[in-house]
Amino acid sequence: MAERITPRAENYSQWYIDTILQSKLADYSPVKGCMVIRPRGYALWEKMKAGLDGLFKETGHQNAYFPMLIPESFLKKEAEHVKGFSPELAVVTHAGGEKLEEPLILRPTSETIIWSMYKKWIQSYRDLPLLINQWANVIRWEKRTRLFLRTTEFLWQEGHTAHATEEEAQEETIKMLMVYKKFAEEYMALPVIAGIKSESEKFAGAVQTYAIEGLMQDKRALQAGTSHNLGQNFAKAFDVTFQTKEGTLDHVWATSWGVSARLVGALIMTHSDDRGLVLPPVLAPIQVMIVPIFKNENKAQVVGYARKLYERLKTQVSVEIDEDDQNSPGWKFAEAELHGIPIRVEVGPKDMEKNQAMLVRRDTYEKIPVANPEVETRVKQLLEEIQNNLYHRALAFRKENTHQAEDYQSFKKLIEEQGGFIESGWCGNADCEAKIKKETKATIRVLPMGRNGAGNRTCILCGEKAKELAVFAKAY
Amino acid sequence: MAERITPRAENYSQWYIDTILQSKLADYSPVKGCMVIRPRGYALWEKMKAGLDGLFKETGHQNAYFPMLIPESFLKKEAEHVKGFSPELAVVTHAGGEKLEEPLILRPTSETIIWSMYKKWIQSYRDLPLLINQWANVIRWEKRTRLFLRTTEFLWQEGHTAHATEEEAQEETIKMLMVYKKFAEEYMALPVIAGIKSESEKFAGAVQTYAIEGLMQDKRALQAGTSHNLGQNFAKAFDVTFQTKEGTLDHVWATSWGVSARLVGALIMTHSDDRGLVLPPVLAPIQVMIVPIFKNENKAQVVGYARKLYERLKTQVSVEIDEDDQNSPGWKFAEAELHGIPIRVEVGPKDMEKNQAMLVRRDTYEKIPVANPEVETRVKQLLEEIQNNLYHRALAFRKENTHQAEDYQSFKKLIEEQGGFIESGWCGNADCEAKIKKETKATIRVLPMGRNGAGNRTCILCGEKAKELAVFAKAY
Repeated sequence: MAERITPRAENYSQWYIDTILQSKLADYSPVKGCMVIRPRGYALWEKMKAGLDGLFKETGHQNAYFPMLIPESFLKKEAEHVKGFSPELAVVTHAGGEKLEEPLILRPTSETIIWSMYKKWIQSYRDLPLLINQWANVIRWEKRTRLFLRTTEFLWQEGHTAHATEEEAQEETIKMLMVYKKFAEEYMALPVIAGIKSESEKFAGAVQTYAIEGLMQDKRALQAGTSHNLGQNFAKAFDVTFQTKEGTLDHVWATSWGVSARLVGALIMTHSDDRGLVLPPVLAPIQVMIVPIFKNENKAQVVGYARKLYERLKTQVSVEIDEDDQNSPGWKFAEAELHGIPIRVEVGPKDMEKNQAMLVRRDTYEKIPVANPEVETRVKQLLEEIQNNLYHRALAFRKENTHQAEDYQSFKKLIEEQGGFIESGWCGNADCEAKIKKETKATIRVLPMGRNGAGNRTCILCGEKAKELAVFAKAY
Repeated sequence: MAERITPRAENYSQWYIDTILQSKLADYSPVKGCMVIRPRGYALWEKMKAGLDGLFKETGHQNAYFPMLIPESFLKKEAEHVKGFSPELAVVTHAGGEKLEEPLILRPTSETIIWSMYKKWIQSYRDLPLLINQWANVIRWEKRTRLFLRTTEFLWQEGHTAHATEEEAQEETIKMLMVYKKFAEEYMALPVIAGIKSESEKFAGAVQTYAIEGLMQDKRALQAGTSHNLGQNFAKAFDVTFQTKEGTLDHVWATSWGVSARLVGALIMTHSDDRGLVLPPVLAPIQVMIVPIFKNENKAQVVGYARKLYERLKTQVSVEIDEDDQNSPGWKFAEAELHGIPIRVEVGPKDMEKNQAMLVRRDTYEKIPVANPEVETRVKQLLEEIQNNLYHRALAFRKENTHQAEDYQSFKKLIEEQGGFIESGWCGNADCEAKIKKETKATIRVLPMGRNGAGNRTCILCGEKAKELAVFAKAY
C-alpha cells in the first residue's frame, strides 16, 4: 500500500482506478483496451463464476465450447445482428502465412456460430429444449475503455437455448433474468431492478431484451446482466427447424443471456470505500485475516495463540494468518482493508491475557471483542451480518437515490443535481427517448417489471399519455 | 446410438473419430480446423480442469488472465520463439472498421505478453517467486487437424513462473512435470514416461523441455504435457531484472508448462473400446447409471426399487437413473457403454425377488450380483478397482510394447512391424536423429529420467558410443 487512493469525494472515477490498481485486481496491458486480470482479481472472478455456474447447472444448463473464430458471412445472416455489431468487430485476415479466403471475425458474441451448430443437432422436438452455456472470452473493439467495465477483450458467459414453443423461450428468458437477479442480490449484495429494455437499447437480433440494473455509489446506473428473447430470428437466419410432436415442421425458438467480468467492477463500485475494497463475504476469496500483534520478546507466544485460532477457523471459513515480521500491525491492518477482507482478527498480548480475540468488521470498522471459545461461532454469524448489511446499505442508498419526476423541468434538475434513478412516464416513442438522452445524457435503463405500468402518468417529455413507467439514469 | 462405431482392428483412426462423434464429446465446426466441444466432452474437460487446478493450487500457483491479442513486435523479441511459432500465427489486421497500425497476433502461447507484464511487477527478490497459471484458448494454424489432438483453436492451461535463481527455476520445471505425471497416472489412469526432449524437439525459446509421453492403443506415442526451463531467455528479451538479496541486479529465471484438451484425446485412445468410451471413475462425469428393467405391469415396483437405490447412492457417487420408457433396456445398456459410464446397475423383477442388484463393469463387462444392503460399499470399492485396473491394463500394454533395439536393422523392423516404444542408444547428434526420423518416421519422444543414461550402448544409427538412452516412437 505504497500509494494513496484518491478519495471518492475528490474524484470517483480516479478512486475506482486507484482501488483496482493498488489492490492488484487488474492492470493495464500493452495492448490497447485490453486488461490483465491479476491473481487477486481472478480469484474473485473464480468465486463469481463458481456461484453462477452452480445456478446455471441447478436450472438444467450444461457447458460447452464453440470456436472463437466466426466466418464473416455468418455474422451477416441476421440483418439486425450484423448492423449492431459491425462497428466493433476485429478481423483475422491472415493465418499460417497466407491471406484467408474469407476473413474470420473474433466472436463479439456467439449466436451465429452456435446456431450454425444447432442446425446439425436439432431435428425433432425430442432434441429440445437445448440448454447450453459457454464461458469464454469475446472481443468488441471499444473506443473508450475502463478496467473491468468496458474492455476490448472481456471474459463472460453466454447462454444459448433452443425451445419448441414461444412460451417456453419466454419462460427461459425470465428464468435466467431471475437467476441473475438472485446472483446479484444474494452473492454480490447488489440490489437490482429487473425490467425490459426499450427498443433502442435492446440486443441486436433480439425480439425483447431484459436486464438487471444496479445503482453505483456515484449515482450512475450499471447494467449487470441481460437476457434476450430471440424469437425465431436466429432459427430463421440459420434455417433451424424441428419436427413438432404433431408432425409439422417449425422454426426453433431461442434465448440468449450473459454476464461478464464487468460484474467485478459493479461489485467494487457498490461497496468499496476510501481505504480500498469492501467485498461481500460470500464472494471474498479470503474471508478472515488473523493479525497477531507481537514484539520480538513475545512473538512465539502470540503467534502460537493466533495459530491455534487459525487451525480452528480454517475448517469453517476461508482464513489466512499474517505472521510476517517485516511489517507493522498497522501496515497489516491497512493491507487487509485494501484487499476487502470482511473480518480482521487481531490478537495481541492483552487479548491473550483476557483469553479473547478482537474482531474488526471491514464494512463498519466496528471492533468486537470475543471470548476465545466463541470465535468460530461469532465469525460465522458476523460474515452473515456483513453480507446482510452490505445488501441493505446498498438498498437504502438506492431508495434514497430513486426519485419521481412529473415534469421535464424537475426531471432535468434531478438528473443534473441529484443523479440516481428517476422514475417517469414515457409515451413509448423513440424520438422522445432520443431527445431526453441528447439533452440530459440519461437513458431509459429499464421498464421495470411488476410495477403495474404507467398508471395515470404522462410522458415526461411530450406530455402525451404515458404507455410505460420508465427508469431513467445516467449509466456506465 | 444410431450408427456403428468402426472397430479398432478395422481402422483405428476412424474408430477414434466415430467414438467422439457418436458419444457426442465433440463435433466438427464450420471453421476450418476448429472443433466444438459438446456438453458431454466439456463435462469431461471440466473434471480434468478441476483436478489439475487443485494440483496447481496445492503447489502454490494462482490463476490470472492475460490478453489474447499480442503485438507482433512482442513475438519477435525472443529470436527462437518467433522462429518456432511464425508459421502457425493468425493475424488481426483490421478492427473497429480500421486498419491497425500494428498487426495483433492471436496468442499461440503467452510468454511474450506475460513477460511484458512481469517487467512491471518484478523489482525485487521480494516479488519472487511469481507463480501464475492461466486457463485460456490459444490459436495455432495447423495444416492437418484431428478432433482434440490437434486443432487450430484449443483450450489449455499455461503456467508461467519467475524465480530468483537458476536452481529454483529448474526445481519448478521438474515439480510441474511431476504434477503432470501424477495427474496422468492417478486421474487419467495413463502411465507415462517422463523425460527430456532432444534439442530439435524442445519448445521454441526454452533452455530445456521436459515432457510426459503415453502410449496409445495403436502403439503410437502421445505427448501429454510439457514443462520448460526457460533460463533467462524471456527475462533478457523483455529486460526483466530484480534486485537480489545481496543488492545486485540480475535477470529473472523462468519456467513455463502446459497441458491442453488434447488430454481428452489421450484418455479416449488409452482406455476406450469398440463399444465406445471407457472412462476412469475419477474423471467420469457420471460414475454409475442405474437401469431399471421393467414392463408396463411392473414399472411402478421396479422403478420404486431402483429409485431407493438411487437415493442411497447419490450422496456418495455421481449417479443417474434411466427411467425412460421409450427405449429398451438393451438400448440403455449400449448407451451407458457408449458414454463410458464405469458401472451400470441393472435392477429387474428377479433382482427385486433376491433383494439384490446386478453391477456391470464397463472395463471388463463382468457382471457382479450384489446384495441390496451392500450396494453402496461395493460400488465405491468397484470404482477404485476399475480405476486401478485401467491403469494396470495400460501399464501392461506399454510394457508389452516397449522394445530394446541394439542395431538399426532390428530397430527399423520393430518400428515397422511392432510399433510401440523402442529404447536405444543415441550419440546425441541431431543429424542421426533427423535421419532416423526421415527413414522410419520415428522420433525421439524423450530421454527418460531416472534410467542411468546410455550405459554401454552405441548409437542406433551411427554406431558411435551413445551419449543418451533415447525412447523412440511414431507419435501423434
